[in-house]
Amino acid sequence: MAIDPDKLLSMPPIVTRQVLTPRDTILYALGIGASELDFLFEERLQALPTMAVTLGYPGFIWRDPALGANWQKILHGEQSTILHAALPVAGEIVGSTRIEALYDKGADKGALAMVTREIHDGAGVHLATSRAMTFLRGDGGFGGSAEGAPVPHAIPDRTPDDVVTLTTAANQAQIYRLSGDLNPLHIDPDVAKAGGFDAPILHGLATYGVIGRALLAARCGNDPVRLKRLDGRFSSPVYPGETIETSIWDEQDGKLAFRARVVERDKIIFTNGYAETA
Amino acid sequence: MAIDPDKLLSMPPIVTRQVLTPRDTILYALGIGASELDFLFEERLQALPTMAVTLGYPGFIWRDPALGANWQKILHGEQSTILHAALPVAGEIVGSTRIEALYDKGADKGALAMVTREIHDGAGVHLATSRAMTFLRGDGGFGGSAEGAPVPHAIPDRTPDDVVTLTTAANQAQIYRLSGDLNPLHIDPDVAKAGGFDAPILHGLATYGVIGRALLAARCGNDPVRLKRLDGRFSSPVYPGETIETSIWDEQDGKLAFRARVVERDKIIFTNGYAETA
Repeated sequence: MAIDPDKLLSMPPIVTRQVLTPRDTILYALGIGASELDFLFEERLQALPTMAVTLGYPGFIWRDPALGANWQKILHGEQSTILHAALPVAGEIVGSTRIEALYDKGADKGALAMVTREIHDGAGVHLATSRAMTFLRGDGGFGGSAEGAPVPHAIPDRTPDDVVTLTTAANQAQIYRLSGDLNPLHIDPDVAKAGGFDAPILHGLATYGVIGRALLAARCGNDPVRLKRLDGRFSSPVYPGETIETSIWDEQDGKLAFRARVVERDKIIFTNGYAETA
Repeated sequence: MAIDPDKLLSMPPIVTRQVLTPRDTILYALGIGASELDFLFEERLQALPTMAVTLGYPGFIWRDPALGANWQKILHGEQSTILHAALPVAGEIVGSTRIEALYDKGADKGALAMVTREIHDGAGVHLATSRAMTFLRGDGGFGGSAEGAPVPHAIPDRTPDDVVTLTTAANQAQIYRLSGDLNPLHIDPDVAKAGGFDAPILHGLATYGVIGRALLAARCGNDPVRLKRLDGRFSSPVYPGETIETSIWDEQDGKLAFRARVVERDKIIFTNGYAETA
């Protein structure tokens, strides 16, 4: 069975209603390794902006056999999150998810799906737009085109303006998955092996949250509402327990380029990063 | 304002209904530092027996001014948990909590309250009995007696039969508190200072869960239903990040004596331990 592009692109949006609690907001922060009380203590709680990627999240949709994808081989390729308003720490959330575009990189490489989710609160306030570029490694060659895919942001060819190093815990993925992405790739050694990995890997979006913490600390004085957009490409997996070093280049008007590497293996794991701050 | 023993002892039981989810069960296990997939992965999940202390839990009742206690000075003195049946990983839970007894250690020492909670599932199956001896350091001298308090289990005067060392994480209390005990003593440095501590301390019941893990691993082959009872006294606080070493003495018929110390400070933090295993 292979993916059917017309079917996937014409599916009705998946509407996901969620009642967010302060416990959820704290658990997300713990899932990406935050230690600041403003992100962990309900009496002074603020939501981390990258939590948007978990809000109104329909779950790991690709495991549904109706979608026809080889789900064990799926990786999160790129992520873009645009924040339209401060995220709440509690309350009703509505996510509307659809497959906005499909790109064909060929049978040997795979397919790319742009999965877009508009996130609103219960009163209809538009909170955020999440766009995931999902790499379906086993599903290329469906007769489509690779043209029109988003162009990666260039990383400057000079010394970074700032470098932030953050650790992850050995159980980071085990905590992070409680924010909703229960893909067993991130906890079950057998599923990880079937997917071609030596051990369960950290969720790309957990890595993304760690990098968001680095940018918040270095360029936003840890004020979560100052981070307005965060884009980039997952270039290699991170294993829980590894150290993530984020290099930041200042561009004009609060815009940033960034990439990150795992210190222990000197491996770039996130690149073409682009952020907007206020 | 001081405690009124007649009022406290005649209060109607606090009935707490809860819908337990696999996420709650996993979060409890993470809160006490478990790393075994049987306790963390919903596809093969088992509940740790010490989770009983969080089930049907009414919250930190003493912060209610109606109880008249000096809540910042309260410590969990002793805990006894008797397991009557295997704990579920999900489903309805009903806790019924009352103050079963009060003991007066004098105005200089404080009062001891025995807080008893009977825990049932939604079908009425009796799951566990939790008895907490709560030390109200600021509320002794109410005119009662210290007689009749439970007698501590003696620790043998010989080399232990087994020693198990387990670490805690720097954010252990921040994770554990999401299982329901939001006492700010365990996260807010100002509240910790007001309570006489240098920094936020680990929940006594988190320490208790870590010790339960040690006994499960050493004497129950990590089979959670083999631990039937776990009693003992919190003798000194643990700070998150410290290492807990549990010493175990075998007694007859699967009964155990145990105590635990913090390795870094060579301090006994839990003693008079008594367990029953099958």
